This record gives sequence, structure tokens and C-alpha cells, in this order.
Amino acid sequence: MSKMLAVFAIQLTLLCVELLHGLPLSLQSRKRDGFQTEDRFTEKYFTQTLDHFNFNSMGNGTFQQRYLITDKYWKKGYGPIFFYTGNEGDIWEFAANSGFISELAAQQGALLIFAEHRYYGRSLPFGKDSFSLPQVGLLTVEQALADYAVMISELKQQLEAQLCPVIVFGGSYGGMLSAYMRFKYPNIVAGALAASAPVLATAGLGDSRQFFRDVTADFERVSPKCRDAVRGAFHQLAELAQLQDYSRIQSEFSLCAPPASAQDIQQLNGLLRNAFTLMAMLDYPYSTHFMGNMPANPVKVGCETMLSGPDLLTNLRNTAGIVYNSTGGLSCFDLYTLYLQCADPTGCGLGLDSLAWDYQACTEVNLCFESNNVTDMFPPMAFTETDREQYCSKRWAVLPRPSWLKTQFWGDALSTASNIIFSNGDLDPWANGGVRWSLSPSVVAVNISEGAHHLDLRGSDAADPVSVISARKTEAELIAQWVEEERVRLQRSP
Amino acid sequence: MSKMLAVFAIQLTLLCVELLHGLPLSLQSRKRDGFQTEDRFTEKYFTQTLDHFNFNSMGNGTFQQRYLITDKYWKKGYGPIFFYTGNEGDIWEFAANSGFISELAAQQGALLIFAEHRYYGRSLPFGKDSFSLPQVGLLTVEQALADYAVMISELKQQLEAQLCPVIVFGGSYGGMLSAYMRFKYPNIVAGALAASAPVLATAGLGDSRQFFRDVTADFERVSPKCRDAVRGAFHQLAELAQLQDYSRIQSEFSLCAPPASAQDIQQLNGLLRNAFTLMAMLDYPYSTHFMGNMPANPVKVGCETMLSGPDLLTNLRNTAGIVYNSTGGLSCFDLYTLYLQCADPTGCGLGLDSLAWDYQACTEVNLCFESNNVTDMFPPMAFTETDREQYCSKRWAVLPRPSWLKTQFWGDALSTASNIIFSNGDLDPWANGGVRWSLSPSVVAVNISEGAHHLDLRGSDAADPVSVISARKTEAELIAQWVEEERVRLQRSP
Repeated sequence: MSKMLAVFAIQLTLLCVELLHGLPLSLQSRKRDGFQTEDRFTEKYFTQTLDHFNFNSMGNGTFQQRYLITDKYWKKGYGPIFFYTGNEGDIWEFAANSGFISELAAQQGALLIFAEHRYYGRSLPFGKDSFSLPQVGLLTVEQALADYAVMISELKQQLEAQLCPVIVFGGSYGGMLSAYMRFKYPNIVAGALAASAPVLATAGLGDSRQFFRDVTADFERVSPKCRDAVRGAFHQLAELAQLQDYSRIQSEFSLCAPPASAQDIQQLNGLLRNAFTLMAMLDYPYSTHFMGNMPANPVKVGCETMLSGPDLLTNLRNTAGIVYNSTGGLSCFDLYTLYLQCADPTGCGLGLDSLAWDYQACTEVNLCFESNNVTDMFPPMAFTETDREQYCSKRWAVLPRPSWLKTQFWGDALSTASNIIFSNGDLDPWANGGVRWSLSPSVVAVNISEGAHHLDLRGSDAADPVSVISARKTEAELIAQWVEEERVRLQRSP
Repeated sequence: MSKMLAVFAIQLTLLCVELLHGLPLSLQSRKRDGFQTEDRFTEKYFTQTLDHFNFNSMGNGTFQQRYLITDKYWKKGYGPIFFYTGNEGDIWEFAANSGFISELAAQQGALLIFAEHRYYGRSLPFGKDSFSLPQVGLLTVEQALADYAVMISELKQQLEAQLCPVIVFGGSYGGMLSAYMRFKYPNIVAGALAASAPVLATAGLGDSRQFFRDVTADFERVSPKCRDAVRGAFHQLAELAQLQDYSRIQSEFSLCAPPASAQDIQQLNGLLRNAFTLMAMLDYPYSTHFMGNMPANPVKVGCETMLSGPDLLTNLRNTAGIVYNSTGGLSCFDLYTLYLQCADPTGCGLGLDSLAWDYQACTEVNLCFESNNVTDMFPPMAFTETDREQYCSKRWAVLPRPSWLKTQFWGDALSTASNIIFSNGDLDPWANGGVRWSLSPSVVAVNISEGAHHLDLRGSDAADPVSVISARKTEAELIAQWVEEERVRLQRSP
């Protein structure tokens, strides 16, 4: 699909999804975590350097980087700064789904800032041209980190907060950024809560089969029958595809149009696999509206659906419907607007943000994960280094540099790091791509036995398992300790 | 002066200097430190990524980066790697003037690598077009560090040296790079000897008067009369300039052409001040041929010359002659070919390398040093932030970012650093722009009371003061300790 077509399709999808839900997603989701996010935050823009690493490419050109800020909890000029290192999406989404950071700010008298990552949300350096070549070239992890370093330094001055310790927070890729901030800018940040940050997997360390094996394990944990039902359904689909019985596939899966090629079947497999990925990642004990709408305990709900009747294909369609048709408003599934194949086999999301993430997965962030139907329950879908190279050179005219992230952001050679919490939920398929064992008294792994993807960052909920309550307590104590230590340092040499 | 003219002038000067000396400078200087440098090193080229921080600007384009290597001391596959992070010049120069690293390699069984900094020597990414816009934009500290990180990682693989600890070494800006490598890439380097690295001054921290005050102090230390004579001579020159007695100035200073403007006088003052800068920096106890030819103890020789007769202007000319006319071969001084005014008031050197350094001083490296005739003995010559902006926007079409180096490379917030020696010589005007007190048991300041600019990196000499012998011993011990600690870590998790 050409880029223009892709953008058009994405915009159409977004419009469609918004119409279905009756409200723009970004507005809907701001009401999560038990309060109106808008009530708390002021939306501002920071004049940011376009290119931190080349002085003549853009001159000293700037762009407007969005951030959210609230001082309602802040002991002005004294309390710490809690700074969320925004990741691949609209910053309001992360603010609305990271209530723990606000709770902690209230406890510890902190100034709260959520900064939006360049090329996401409304922080588009070149507006609608941001995803053209060569403009997209300024989208790198390094530029994003430099943005945060510069923003923190300047805001500290503006707000007369020079003596206020800074702690960074982030989830998923945002958690990677938090850890990287502490690696690379310990002069600016005193510590990091890196929640569900797959720093090892994305550096190309680990097993390419791990991710979908662990998605599978989540469903298997509910019941081995559930795993078998999923595998069985995909086998039946494969048999129908083999027979090219496309009209049967269309009716079984309520597709808006019949598949017409092996590529369409591949797309359908991707779309279906992605539903399980999302249920596993977002397997929270209450319903959520982060990255779409999810019921409480979606893996359990998914398994119940998979085992709800004799027709496995119907069950599979209905399970996918948990993710793609949560309101029941879709009369059919459109293969190419509900799911985007990209350089991230775990999904790039939809909308403009998905373009940015696809580019990042084509350059620095390694995500060559495969399903193979042996170590997991999904159809064999490889995504090798060669596949990645071919896709990325065609899509973005770039070649990935598979060893760069490991060189630049230390891979597993973390012995010199300090003041980082690597938290992970055992239910999260990303967990085993991250740091699971404490490396020192100040590089601490916090494992949350009943947690999905960065559950600890979410606001407290009556349905929270004990493990996340305990994790948040540990995190709060470590952060308070780092803040005190940094305060001493800053007062000694401001 | 237009850029083309400047380049032409520089090439002419180099030719002239080479003709005078009878040998290319680069060849001459390879014979220092008591041996033939060529005998030890093999010159190689590494295929290096052009742009580490933008995936589509150059595609995955590469350039040929020069490095020197010798395994004659190496315990193959076991001994450490001693890696010199090349700075602003031809890498053979640094290899020829850093004999201590070879001596240490012999002691500790190390593989020895001297890597040339991009845009210097023969490591020109775009050949003769390297200093055009926009090509020069890929000249940054970050790119240079990334070059070294990638080079070390790949060479370790090629040489089957994965278990060999890496220690980086550098002097002056090269020392800054060594420290930065340990800051930013502790996954790759186990420790750094940062010799005479003005990490604070170049980050804009400190007093703009410090440098020329400390040059002055060196001459004052020999004799307050010496300082007074220099100040008196510059006053006489200022009076003649005031009277526009240009022919007298020409004859007193043996200029090839009479000065004709205030700008020419400014250039003359710069050229003269620079002679004192070089004598102070290179005040070694034996004659050297690094950054030109110097007699042993040049500050003492300079003071003797300043006090050698009744005519202060003659004395000043002869003192400048120590630097600019060491062989006595010049019949007159050409104002604009012997000295280049640039964004570094301490001098950019000559030749193509001076263009690269000028660009770096116009972008990341802050060198707004002034002389004022109050805290120093020189004519008042300011170089303010505004002067810098004006010069740099005109010369290179760039604006400096004065706070960037402090943000990116930590400024004085070094509490999380480890395994770095900051060595400085008390005679070196750069010393007080660096780290002079130990910050922890592993961030150690080594101060060499009788040392000039990175004397400790030079090979042992019979004339060495006790202080440098002792410093080298301390350095050797710390490095051996870091190597052992890193070896344990690497063997635990290769």
C-alpha cells in the first residue's frame, strides 16, 4: 500500500472509530482513572530545538512540543518534579492512564509534567509533512531524550525549581526512555521508574519467540483448553485458506469483503493475533479504555469466548470482537482499517502515531518477534531481520541498524546504572524482554505477579491485586529516598 | 576573509612551514618520544557510519575513519585494549606524543589503538568538501563518540577480544572525549584517563578570565619582572598603534608587510598572545615538536628573552620568534599565515584541522575566554557570547548553543560518574577549567605540580619531574584495578 493510501486509510479508520464511539478517543480516555484528567493539567507548548545533533541542518530551528503540567500538589521550589517521558502516542492518553504518578505527586508534594514525544500527538515538528522524507529523519530516540533533557533544564529555570530533584516515569517504550534518561542524563534526573520497559528485547537481546510464547502462556494459564481452542481455530482458518474458500472465511469472520489473496489471509491472521496480544498486554482486573476498550480481565473473557460454543471459527471471531468491536457497533470487520501491518509484529496502533512508531521500529527499535505455532498458539508468522530490512527500505527508504540500540543504550551491560526501578507484570508479554532481577540496591527489579502491562502506573483501583499495591509501595519508598539524596547533592552544588 | 581565501592562506602556510622545516610536519613528529612511531603502529581504516543520529539523511552511508593499531604488547584475547579517543588533529601526532600509553600497554599487555576523530587528519567524511555546508554538520562531539563506540564494539568482535576490558585515553579535547565515553558508554569502556580535559570551562562553567590569567601566572612564576615586561611591551605596541605608526610596528616586529588597520593590530596582538599561550601549554622540561617546535622549558626561555635587553618590543618579537621562528628560517612574520583568528581565543592551529576545530568552537565547545590587561598581562581582547554568535553565524552560518554541552555532558554534576582520572598539570592554563578535586574513590583528580598540558601522556624522559612520575604510577595502578574489575564483569556476563 502506498504511503498516501495508508494515511488515508488510517484517517478513515480513526473517523470511523470516533463516530462509532460518539466521542474522539482522546477526549474519551481523559476521563479514566476515576477523574477528569483535564481538571488537573494545563496543556502547554515548549519551543524545542529541531535537531540537537546537527547545528546546520535546521539552523537553530524549533518546533512546538506539547506538555501537560500541574502544580496542584507541588511544594513550590522544594518538592520534586515528576516527569513522564512520553512515548508513542497522544500525551493526554498517558496522563489519563498513569494515575499512580499523580497519587505519588500528591503524597510527595511534586510538580507533575507529562511531556509528549516528538512526532506523536500534536508534537509534530513539520505538521502534516512530518512523515515525509527527509523530515521524518529527526525522529530518533536520541532526539527525544535530548528534548526531555533540554525541556527539564529550561523549565527548572523558568519555574525556579533548580533545587528540586527530578524523577522520570514511563511505561513501555516510555519506560525505556525513562531508564535511558537516567543512563545518559544523570546530571538532570535523579532516578527513573521504568515500568514494563523491554530494554533487552528491543536491543535485540533475547529470543524472538519469547513475546508470542508469553502471550500464549497467558491464555494457557486460564486454561490449556483455551490455548488449544485458539490453535484449533487458526488451523481451521489455515485449512479454509488452503482451499481458497474465501467466501466461507468472509462469513465466518464477518469480513466486509471476502479475502482475495494469500496477502489478505496474512492480514487476517495478523489482525486476529493482534487481538490476543492486546488482551494479554491489557489484562487488567477492571475495564479500561487505554489503547481501545477492554473489559475487566480480558484474557479470561477471551478464553470464555473461545470456549463458548462448538464452532471454533465463530468463537475466534467473537474473541477478536472483544478488541475490535467492543461496543458491538461494527456490522463487519474491515481487514485493512482495523489493523496495520508494520515493522512491529506486536502492532503499531492506528492513526498518524502508528506511522511514527513504524519508522522507529524500522530504525533503532528491534522488534523481530515471530510466532511459529510450536512455541505459541498462533499461525507461523516470521518477521526476520531480512523481512525487516526489505519492509523498511521499501516503506521508509531506511535500513535498520540492529546493533545500534545495544551500543547506544547499553544492552544488558547495566552494571554502572543506578536509581532505576525496572517494574514488570508477570502477565505482560513484554515482561521477559525487560530486566527481571535486581542488579544492585539501586537498580531494582519489581515483579508484579498479577500485573499486566505497566499496571503499576495506573491509578489505584478497588480491584487491584495485592502484588501491585505492594509494588507501588516499594516504588514510592525508593523514589522518596532518591529525592532526598538528590536534594542533598543539589544543595551542596546548585 | 572568505572561506576560500582562508583555506588558500592556510595551505600556503602549511607548504611554507613544510619547506622551512624540510620535512612534512606529520612525518617529523612521528619520531618523538624516543622512537619511530611508524615502527610500532599499523595504519588502518574503519568503515564508519556517516550519521549515527539520522537514519535517512545519508542512508546508511559510510566514510573511512583512520586508526593506528599495534598488538606487539598484547596478550591476545586476554590483555586490555587501550584506546586513544583522537582529538583535533592528525592521529599520528597524538600517537607520537603519547608515549606513556605505549609504556603502559607494554606493562599491562594491552592492545593499543589510536583512533582519528572524524573531520581531522585523513578522516574526512567528504574529502575536500568536508568543510562545506551542509557536509560539516556531521561534525559533532556526539558523532565522534558514537564513532568510537561503534569502532570499539566492532573491532572487539573482529579481534576476538570480547573479554578484553577497554580503557580510553585522551589529552585536552581528547581527554574530554575519554571522560564522555565513560559517561555515556560505560557499557563499552571500563575507565578513562582524561588528561588535561577542560570539561568545566568548555561547558561554559567558570570564569572567562581564568585562561589568560593562568597563562600570565606561568610567566609571573618565573619572575614578576617577566610579567611586567610582557605587559610593558604590549603597552608600547598599543601606543604605536594609537599613533598609527605602522612602519615602526612593522620594523619592530619584523612583519612582512606593514599593518594598515586596527584589524591588523588586533591580528598582531592575537598572534603575540598566542605565542605565550603555546609556551605556557607546552612548558615541558625538554624540547618538543608537538604543535610546533618548542625548546625545553619554553616559559623560562621566553622570560629570559623578554628580559634580555632594553628594548621591550624587540624582546617581545624575539619571544614570539621562539614559537613562530624556532629554526630562525623566517626572515619576516606574515600576520595572517602564522596565526588564525577563530572561535577559539586560545588558537585553532593551522591547516584543515583548524577549520574543523573552529566549527566545533562555533557549535558545542564554549571557549569565550578574554584577556583584559587587569587579571592578565595581555591587551584587552574580549570574546563574548555576542562576538561568538556574530563570528559563527557569518563564518559557518550556525549559532552556538551555549548550554548544550553542559546539558549533554553533565557539566559539574559528575556524582554518578566512575572510573575516571582527571589529570592536570599545575603549569597548564587549561588545568583550572577541569576537575581539580577527586569526587570519589573512582573519580580521581591527579594534579601534577610541575606539569604542563597533559605531560603525563608523554613518554618517560630523564628530565621528568617527580610529580609526573608519581602521577603516572597512580594512573597505572588505577587502570590496572579497573581492568581487573571489568574482566570479572565481562567473564560473568559476556
